[in-house]
Amino acid sequence: MIQCPRGTRDFLPDEMEKRRCYENILRGVAHTFGFREIETPIFEEAELFILRSGPNVLKELYNFKDKGDRELALRPEMTAPAIRLFVNNMSNEPKPIKIFYFGQCFRYERPQSGRYREFFQFGAEVIGSATPETDAEIIAMAASMIKALGLKDYKMRIGHIGVLRQKIADAGVPKERTAEVLQKLDKKMYDEARPLLESMDVASDVIDDIFKFTETVGDTSVLEEVPGEAGDYLRQVVRYLSAMGVDNVEIDLGVVRGLDYYTGMVFEAEAPALGAEKQICGGGSYTLSELFGGEKVFSTGFAVGFDRILLAMEKEGIVYQRKGIDAYVLLVTDDVRLKAFEIVSKLRAAGISADADIMGRKMAKSLKFASTVCARYAVIVGAKELEEDSVTLRDMHTGEQKAVKLEDLADTIKG
Amino acid sequence: MIQCPRGTRDFLPDEMEKRRCYENILRGVAHTFGFREIETPIFEEAELFILRSGPNVLKELYNFKDKGDRELALRPEMTAPAIRLFVNNMSNEPKPIKIFYFGQCFRYERPQSGRYREFFQFGAEVIGSATPETDAEIIAMAASMIKALGLKDYKMRIGHIGVLRQKIADAGVPKERTAEVLQKLDKKMYDEARPLLESMDVASDVIDDIFKFTETVGDTSVLEEVPGEAGDYLRQVVRYLSAMGVDNVEIDLGVVRGLDYYTGMVFEAEAPALGAEKQICGGGSYTLSELFGGEKVFSTGFAVGFDRILLAMEKEGIVYQRKGIDAYVLLVTDDVRLKAFEIVSKLRAAGISADADIMGRKMAKSLKFASTVCARYAVIVGAKELEEDSVTLRDMHTGEQKAVKLEDLADTIKG
Repeated sequence: MIQCPRGTRDFLPDEMEKRRCYENILRGVAHTFGFREIETPIFEEAELFILRSGPNVLKELYNFKDKGDRELALRPEMTAPAIRLFVNNMSNEPKPIKIFYFGQCFRYERPQSGRYREFFQFGAEVIGSATPETDAEIIAMAASMIKALGLKDYKMRIGHIGVLRQKIADAGVPKERTAEVLQKLDKKMYDEARPLLESMDVASDVIDDIFKFTETVGDTSVLEEVPGEAGDYLRQVVRYLSAMGVDNVEIDLGVVRGLDYYTGMVFEAEAPALGAEKQICGGGSYTLSELFGGEKVFSTGFAVGFDRILLAMEKEGIVYQRKGIDAYVLLVTDDVRLKAFEIVSKLRAAGISADADIMGRKMAKSLKFASTVCARYAVIVGAKELEEDSVTLRDMHTGEQKAVKLEDLADTIKG
Repeated sequence: MIQCPRGTRDFLPDEMEKRRCYENILRGVAHTFGFREIETPIFEEAELFILRSGPNVLKELYNFKDKGDRELALRPEMTAPAIRLFVNNMSNEPKPIKIFYFGQCFRYERPQSGRYREFFQFGAEVIGSATPETDAEIIAMAASMIKALGLKDYKMRIGHIGVLRQKIADAGVPKERTAEVLQKLDKKMYDEARPLLESMDVASDVIDDIFKFTETVGDTSVLEEVPGEAGDYLRQVVRYLSAMGVDNVEIDLGVVRGLDYYTGMVFEAEAPALGAEKQICGGGSYTLSELFGGEKVFSTGFAVGFDRILLAMEKEGIVYQRKGIDAYVLLVTDDVRLKAFEIVSKLRAAGISADADIMGRKMAKSLKFASTVCARYAVIVGAKELEEDSVTLRDMHTGEQKAVKLEDLADTIKG
């Protein structure tokens, strides 16, 4: 028996209905924030992702040559494709450009809880604006999305990678080794970061200063101790967030993010319920367009790990209620079968989800099937009632039955 | 500059908004018919598609080996994955199972008008039922979808491949050469079909009979001349269709479809406006599950070429009206900037799509940008008006302005 490939999933109707509902909640929030949707291809030239993330990304890519010998890769994320789309098609449009996207991404890695080879990302970018308001908008939207999904236990941490990078550069760390240092700081592994920095001849007091910076963690009041531009900038971001009703954020100047292209504010949201793989959302301000042949343009964006956030919701006991269909049409006797399809068809045309037996089942079996498909009503069609242009409408929850004229049926079901 | 790979497309916001709208119309029709959505992975084991379509399909597949040496392929269609999903996960569920899906498919072929390497398909399957009602449901849903999209000039043709296959087998055509013969008949190339059949020692009167059958074309009255089971069956299908208000169908016993797994009724819809690539929809009844290791189960399904049907709509002059945002918030002076974000935020929380300047623009420039994003209203925030807890609401179409209390703003915009 052929199975779906390792690390990928089939989504059955119950699961899919839930996912579409939550996906549309995210889409709805994006619309209220004035973002518009885009879509890019499932695969891109592999070069695009190497430019964004470095050649190491190849190890995790689904890359392949097509029949025309092009080196392609299934997208591992959608920021690079979105910025490529901007450079190719939208660079002359009025700024700011606010776009979002939702879809499959692919990473060849060992599947584990909440990590799949085919996974789903929701992301958004504001392109062409580099202001505290811009960053606040992005953080506020991320917060609104998490809230709209109903997740309760989560934490948002805001940092500023620009300052940290500057400090590390000023300390004399060679550019090509910055990532290595940031990685240790990201995980707060100071006992490993210290000998590493010492091996690069960084003085002890400079190391202390770097560590102290990344340990600046707390509510927004800790920003009072952060001097300079970055402090001013983040204070502004926080003021806008506060005006927008987003107060439950934490400042954590140790938020590092993985990638070279971040330039200023960075942020992450995590759901502690998920344990080791707790990050559900991350983003920040960056420039990428110049890497793809465009002009340098400042952007701020974020991505939500859709599978992870759903897992976090599940762990919080958030239950999705299946909608079911509105009406299932049953036949008392087989001679009204054609009439039943006429009725079903009229209900559907009125926007009602309706179904009828197509397998020649008798009434009792059909009634059972109506329960299986979670019908709200059963419409019982009998020859005698039809003589008076009526059917019997049965409320499937209460079991209550009443005669309804055919002409009133759609309205009665719609309530 | 990196472009999207040949034969793939970027969908910019205007195009994407339109596509999502039409996609959701299809989804809505499927729901009214009692179908539920599923989703399968973007890639599958290549074997799955070879089992469905034969080894020739490899020539058009995006197939590749993953890092674990699995032979994978991007899906070229979604019927095989849907039936695999059924065999793996749903074979014990109560029948009939009514499912639909929408997503990207991939075929390595020369891109041309309406044909892309990455294209979008909408499809539906009824699994586990083999009755005229089942086939009628599927045809009626396809017709409802085309109608719901607003396409006017299209033709639906219904045939029965079962009978034709039987006739060809009875004539002594070897099984492995059936496809070759059907291909000629599909294109009504009788002058090439005749020598081909003669070369297989098929008698002249038998050839005439086969040709006559495939030339049975016309309104449903031509079924009166079709004897036997197939005639009875299609007459039943047509009666159900008629009960469901679907009368504009043509009978064409020359409808062949390309694939081996069709067993009975087959149908196609075409939009003449598209010229040579005019087919927008096709399907029929089939069995596939036994090929994938399951029990033999009868199904009926169809797929809509989403890109093609959109192209047909475009050629008919159907224009999509961009929705735009509800409100754009403007500042009279910069000191009310924080307040503006508070207002924007409250509108968004009320479900209104709202935006404000994040680039430090002055009023006149912002008003222009409000037009760019097709705002219905401009909300003008001035220090003086704020003293009375008011803002000025400007209707962007009429230019009409009025003072509105902040507490009434959301309701006024919602109308």
